[in-house]
Amino acid sequence: MRALTEALATPLSDADATVQSMPDASPAKWHLAHTTWFFETFVLRDHVPGYTLFDERYPFLFNSYYEAEGARHARHRRGMVTRPTLAEVLDYRRAVNEAVAGAIDTLPPAALELIELGCHHEQQHQELFVTDILHLFSENPCEPAIHTPERKQPVAMPGPIGWIEHDGGIQEIGHDGAGFAFDCEGPRHRVLLSPHAIADRTVTNGEWAAFIADGGYADARHWLADGWAWVKAEGIGAPLYWEKAGDGWTRFGLDGRRPVDPAAPVTHVSFYEADAYASWAGARLPTEAEWEVAAATADPASGNQMDAATAVEPRPSSGGPAFIGDVWEWTGSAYRPYPGFRAAEGAVGEYNGKFMSGQFVLRGGSCATPRGHLRTSYRNFFYPHQRWQFTGVRLAKDLPIC
Amino acid sequence: MRALTEALATPLSDADATVQSMPDASPAKWHLAHTTWFFETFVLRDHVPGYTLFDERYPFLFNSYYEAEGARHARHRRGMVTRPTLAEVLDYRRAVNEAVAGAIDTLPPAALELIELGCHHEQQHQELFVTDILHLFSENPCEPAIHTPERKQPVAMPGPIGWIEHDGGIQEIGHDGAGFAFDCEGPRHRVLLSPHAIADRTVTNGEWAAFIADGGYADARHWLADGWAWVKAEGIGAPLYWEKAGDGWTRFGLDGRRPVDPAAPVTHVSFYEADAYASWAGARLPTEAEWEVAAATADPASGNQMDAATAVEPRPSSGGPAFIGDVWEWTGSAYRPYPGFRAAEGAVGEYNGKFMSGQFVLRGGSCATPRGHLRTSYRNFFYPHQRWQFTGVRLAKDLPIC
Amino acid sequence: MRALTEALATPLSDADATVQSMPDASPAKWHLAHTTWFFETFVLRDHVPGYTLFDERYPFLFNSYYEAEGARHARHRRGMVTRPTLAEVLDYRRAVNEAVAGAIDTLPPAALELIELGCHHEQQHQELFVTDILHLFSENPCEPAIHTPERKQPVAMPGPIGWIEHDGGIQEIGHDGAGFAFDCEGPRHRVLLSPHAIADRTVTNGEWAAFIADGGYADARHWLADGWAWVKAEGIGAPLYWEKAGDGWTRFGLDGRRPVDPAAPVTHVSFYEADAYASWAGARLPTEAEWEVAAATADPASGNQMDAATAVEPRPSSGGPAFIGDVWEWTGSAYRPYPGFRAAEGAVGEYNGKFMSGQFVLRGGSCATPRGHLRTSYRNFFYPHQRWQFTGVRLAKDLPIC
Amino acid sequence: MRALTEALATPLSDADATVQSMPDASPAKWHLAHTTWFFETFVLRDHVPGYTLFDERYPFLFNSYYEAEGARHARHRRGMVTRPTLAEVLDYRRAVNEAVAGAIDTLPPAALELIELGCHHEQQHQELFVTDILHLFSENPCEPAIHTPERKQPVAMPGPIGWIEHDGGIQEIGHDGAGFAFDCEGPRHRVLLSPHAIADRTVTNGEWAAFIADGGYADARHWLADGWAWVKAEGIGAPLYWEKAGDGWTRFGLDGRRPVDPAAPVTHVSFYEADAYASWAGARLPTEAEWEVAAATADPASGNQMDAATAVEPRPSSGGPAFIGDVWEWTGSAYRPYPGFRAAEGAVGEYNGKFMSGQFVLRGGSCATPRGHLRTSYRNFFYPHQRWQFTGVRLAKDLPIC
Repeated sequence: MRALTEALATPLSDADATVQSMPDASPAKWHLAHTTWFFETFVLRDHVPGYTLFDERYPFLFNSYYEAEGARHARHRRGMVTRPTLAEVLDYRRAVNEAVAGAIDTLPPAALELIELGCHHEQQHQELFVTDILHLFSENPCEPAIHTPERKQPVAMPGPIGWIEHDGGIQEIGHDGAGFAFDCEGPRHRVLLSPHAIADRTVTNGEWAAFIADGGYADARHWLADGWAWVKAEGIGAPLYWEKAGDGWTRFGLDGRRPVDPAAPVTHVSFYEADAYASWAGARLPTEAEWEVAAATADPASGNQMDAATAVEPRPSSGGPAFIGDVWEWTGSAYRPYPGFRAAEGAVGEYNGKFMSGQFVLRGGSCATPRGHLRTSYRNFFYPHQRWQFTGVRLAKDLPIC
Repeated sequence: MRALTEALATPLSDADATVQSMPDASPAKWHLAHTTWFFETFVLRDHVPGYTLFDERYPFLFNSYYEAEGARHARHRRGMVTRPTLAEVLDYRRAVNEAVAGAIDTLPPAALELIELGCHHEQQHQELFVTDILHLFSENPCEPAIHTPERKQPVAMPGPIGWIEHDGGIQEIGHDGAGFAFDCEGPRHRVLLSPHAIADRTVTNGEWAAFIADGGYADARHWLADGWAWVKAEGIGAPLYWEKAGDGWTRFGLDGRRPVDPAAPVTHVSFYEADAYASWAGARLPTEAEWEVAAATADPASGNQMDAATAVEPRPSSGGPAFIGDVWEWTGSAYRPYPGFRAAEGAVGEYNGKFMSGQFVLRGGSCATPRGHLRTSYRNFFYPHQRWQFTGVRLAKDLPIC
Repeated sequence: MRALTEALATPLSDADATVQSMPDASPAKWHLAHTTWFFETFVLRDHVPGYTLFDERYPFLFNSYYEAEGARHARHRRGMVTRPTLAEVLDYRRAVNEAVAGAIDTLPPAALELIELGCHHEQQHQELFVTDILHLFSENPCEPAIHTPERKQPVAMPGPIGWIEHDGGIQEIGHDGAGFAFDCEGPRHRVLLSPHAIADRTVTNGEWAAFIADGGYADARHWLADGWAWVKAEGIGAPLYWEKAGDGWTRFGLDGRRPVDPAAPVTHVSFYEADAYASWAGARLPTEAEWEVAAATADPASGNQMDAATAVEPRPSSGGPAFIGDVWEWTGSAYRPYPGFRAAEGAVGEYNGKFMSGQFVLRGGSCATPRGHLRTSYRNFFYPHQRWQFTGVRLAKDLPIC
Repeated sequence: MRALTEALATPLSDADATVQSMPDASPAKWHLAHTTWFFETFVLRDHVPGYTLFDERYPFLFNSYYEAEGARHARHRRGMVTRPTLAEVLDYRRAVNEAVAGAIDTLPPAALELIELGCHHEQQHQELFVTDILHLFSENPCEPAIHTPERKQPVAMPGPIGWIEHDGGIQEIGHDGAGFAFDCEGPRHRVLLSPHAIADRTVTNGEWAAFIADGGYADARHWLADGWAWVKAEGIGAPLYWEKAGDGWTRFGLDGRRPVDPAAPVTHVSFYEADAYASWAGARLPTEAEWEVAAATADPASGNQMDAATAVEPRPSSGGPAFIGDVWEWTGSAYRPYPGFRAAEGAVGEYNGKFMSGQFVLRGGSCATPRGHLRTSYRNFFYPHQRWQFTGVRLAKDLPIC
């Protein structure tokens, strides 16, 4: 797992790995170091007697948001830290890897659980690493490609959306406690669904272009009030990274600026845009429970997810009601605790619960989610205006109550 | 109904009625005129042939947020409109009242429904009128009283919170369609509750003072991340309008600055504060479904609500599990559509649906809610940092699943 | 003198007199009260034994910026003070007038000097009163007229600018100490002028329209860097209060919105605009010393100044090198102390000196300057982006050194 | 000359050279490239037939503010450009050096003048390079040292300030046209001085510590109004880079954090602070004319200036009325054109004139000024709140007019 993070850093210079492109994003070097700090702090410091910190300045530099872990560097100033260098941070990784490996046979079960948590934590940062670097390179007027483009098989345009109907009724969702999951995924609990239908695929770039062409970004009727204010204030008229080019569109990606593929799932759209699209399309977003019930039998290791440090991107579907991979799907559910939710004890209890206001749940993983990280119970969450992740849209609609 | 609005304006000077104290609040004169514009536009203009607008400039000035009704004055500049004067706006009210009264016998049912909606709409603005004026006067360094204080019967301190337990299971909530309700209150639908307990009264000022004294505002562990950022950025350390006075606290109210009554429900707290208090107290906020089920048999016209233009304020409870009046109770539920929700057609369809992101639901009405306006299905909503309304807290907690 | 202030308030409602339209402007009621506070504080409180304040809350409310006088209400919140009312403030004026009149025969010379200073101080606020109210009414979408328009004699378009040449050499400027002057006008001192020419009239609206038509606001070459940034950030394309109307322009004034008179001096332009215009015209702004030398023999009580509470505005010139009245003329001189300048002792020492950074000097008075207030040594000053005063432009240019 | 810039970059990593610490500062890599762009554009592109740009994307990336040269990257986003790398920019430098060297024998005089201008231009950026990198490293919580500290000879505390008196009268200042100077330094012209005295040395750190200890930052009476607002808004209480350490102070410098030397000139103070200090000391700042007359016979190549890429810093004076080096001295003169000033034609005409508003003149060069760059007529300029340059204070005072 740790090797993938380093592979992601391979194409990067020291400068690439240092700069912070916006307060929401972190430098690649910070991701490399913070994920290491997590192991050093919660495993080595707390569970290995006599362990000496690699560098006493690092906890201040590389703690993210754990209030219980004390003072830390201001998030929006992470890009000021040109030293330690990328090479020094890679040394830090090696040293902590070795210390954990050396101690692992004698660690208590609580520490082993924290190692497992640390691996899942690092996988989350692998996805952020990819999207943060993409954002940084998009801010360079030269728009350099991070990876060379991959050869792609031509894929036919997907047919019209098919609708998977559900009669409603009591279902169970949430993680059942077997194997690893983040605290916010449980407890497993019963939910009551209404009769509804959910689309068998996500919205494509071609469909999104039709929304634009129909004036979708200029018609207040489709938009939530906060979304409309955001569109006006920010001058939004297309997904992030899109640019008009003649009659069509290009997008910036890990392989540079290229034409938008009309058959691929649309991505880099905000919740506001997703909701407006659904309104324009006469539909709505699914709730997270509807999504999870529909995806219950899907293989969380399937689909277009991240296997290696390459130019991942959403791809045209080859058919079938795939719920996994490609793009995180905005749901209509605010990110709030499940019935009976309890945050974990101690600093790691700050992992999820304290973010449960103002954000919406996304489901299904993306092309940048490390394969093996996902579960169908997985709850990702972002603010409704954010769109630098690989975020997309699946439609749903109500069915009459029989 | 219309007379109460004018009674609320009676103690106000032209200047009092004109100034806007913050972008969230509107001038009293604007409330007087906007509620009148609603009747003039949707009833008289749309349904009375040959009706001539009272003043052609008023639709631009007094439309609030109806995109379908065209351009309008910027919300945060409403306080610039020193003319028309308060007297002219009262003339406008009289003229529209007379025109509606003159036409009412010949209006089609659709117009009568809009009159009913206009009455409920105006009652909402009556509450905002009270809270906006309170905010304005609080910004005056002299802190003038708007009303003379009312004589109050001394009331004993309420006893400890009692807990109303519920086994969970399928229940119905939402408006059933009989009589008036806002579109967001329906459709009536089934919900699945978890076993839980809900407090039989709201949190008091005395209890809140204990939270402060225990360092509640200074301990990040109790707070949502967004709430903690808000506390730090705004320097929050007590409910709005509270000031430290010796060992105790005073609050500013419609009757000026007076000592905080420890027995009365705490008010003017944000969702963030409510959530942090609940966390400190080892509890949580109720969901809106839990609240509505618990309050199902409550009389929505009962309790401490607004009957007249006086110095309304939350009052010590005289006992009993009162769910109605005193303070709007923050729930833990994000304001989102019910299953099957459809916004009304036309401009009035902008009434609720477009606000369904980023806000939390409040229930139960307050001392400033005009009596007769409330229903147990009523869904009020505000952003989690807002606290100039009469907002308070009721606790809930999970019960083990049997 | 005091009666003119009250006359200025005559057309205003309580609301008109209360609202603050921007942080740079103050409510009319505040001007009425602050000028009174000046007399009450520095004359009555400091020099009349046993004087009791009219209201103990007023010093906090109506001190402007005198740090030595203690805490005061935040400038940008002056518009929140709906009470005391306009009527109460007028009572305050009467009471202080009477107290000063009753004491005047027994006051020491220092107090009499403060009365004189207070009169000049109030005249300054009379001009601000006019421009602040104009700004407030311009923010009302209905753009009400404050005064009915005055009948004007038609005046021919002025001819081309004539140039008054000066050979340079040592001259004297500054106030010589005879009669009243503000501290910043002295000491009188020698200056060394370069050979130059100064225009015999100010720039007209017609000339300004030609600057606009020639793309003057869109060509960076004419602009100071700070000015260009301001134009871009604020979207500036014409003087304040101008609006395009067909082929021509209208302006908002004390008599409402009316066509721009091409023969009248342009007004409501910033220093940045004045400087850009001069650059476009192949000229420059005069220094304040050049201006004062050229205007040395002008009668400071002449020209178009304010005699009464009417719809004052700059007027077409009837000929002659008039330096006085109509518009304050931006000079190219930063507002800095004269050689040997010393601020007065005590609180009134905060009158001028502490504002001597970042601002530019304006000369000559305007249509809103109370007649009798001006001197040719008078130094007005504003920030280079400000333009809600009656500010205009006179050109100058260098002559070769013989 | 070009080699010094590269020497300054030697201690820097690619990341150090890329990050932008604030909008006022530029990345080191940008300085390296922009100074090269200047030669490539104005010499090679404009004067070498057939010259092909090194990289067509560079003009957009590395133009600073020349509007006539077309669109360019936003100044505050310069730190986003992680590519081209530092190595690529050094290649760019080599290529342009070689092209200029190859063409120099055949260049017309106008191009040779532009080479000379380009050298002076690059020297200015050498100083900014040093101060910008210092600022960047100060933002790193680890506060790394850029250079190892230099051994210093102990120097005695300077004695009290001596005063150089001047009777006033007509003097000449400004560049006389012989040899290179920036356009703003001329034309040479006569000025009229008042009788005054100017200090024979700058203010020391020890004297500044006394100002702090006397409450200088907390007493509004010493401060310009804009300065006081700045102190309050920014929480200023000491020079930039100072930190309280026990009873004394430390400062951050190119050699890391070390104790403040009480004998050395104070530096990293703003104009506001300089002016407040002078007020506290019963003095004032000199005008730029007073300074230039006093410094007329000083050797502009003398004193503590930058000779190499080392840990330059202001040093204790060894005596004598040194006007050159150590710290740029704030004058009381706003940066405005001299009589008869004309900006150069073409793009290089944007070099100085357009910055002549809102800034104050500084004189005398600093420890970071490349030796050979300075003239006694040299006019440096910054905004009154800026203090990341090596800026200091020399006092002056008025003498009675005989």
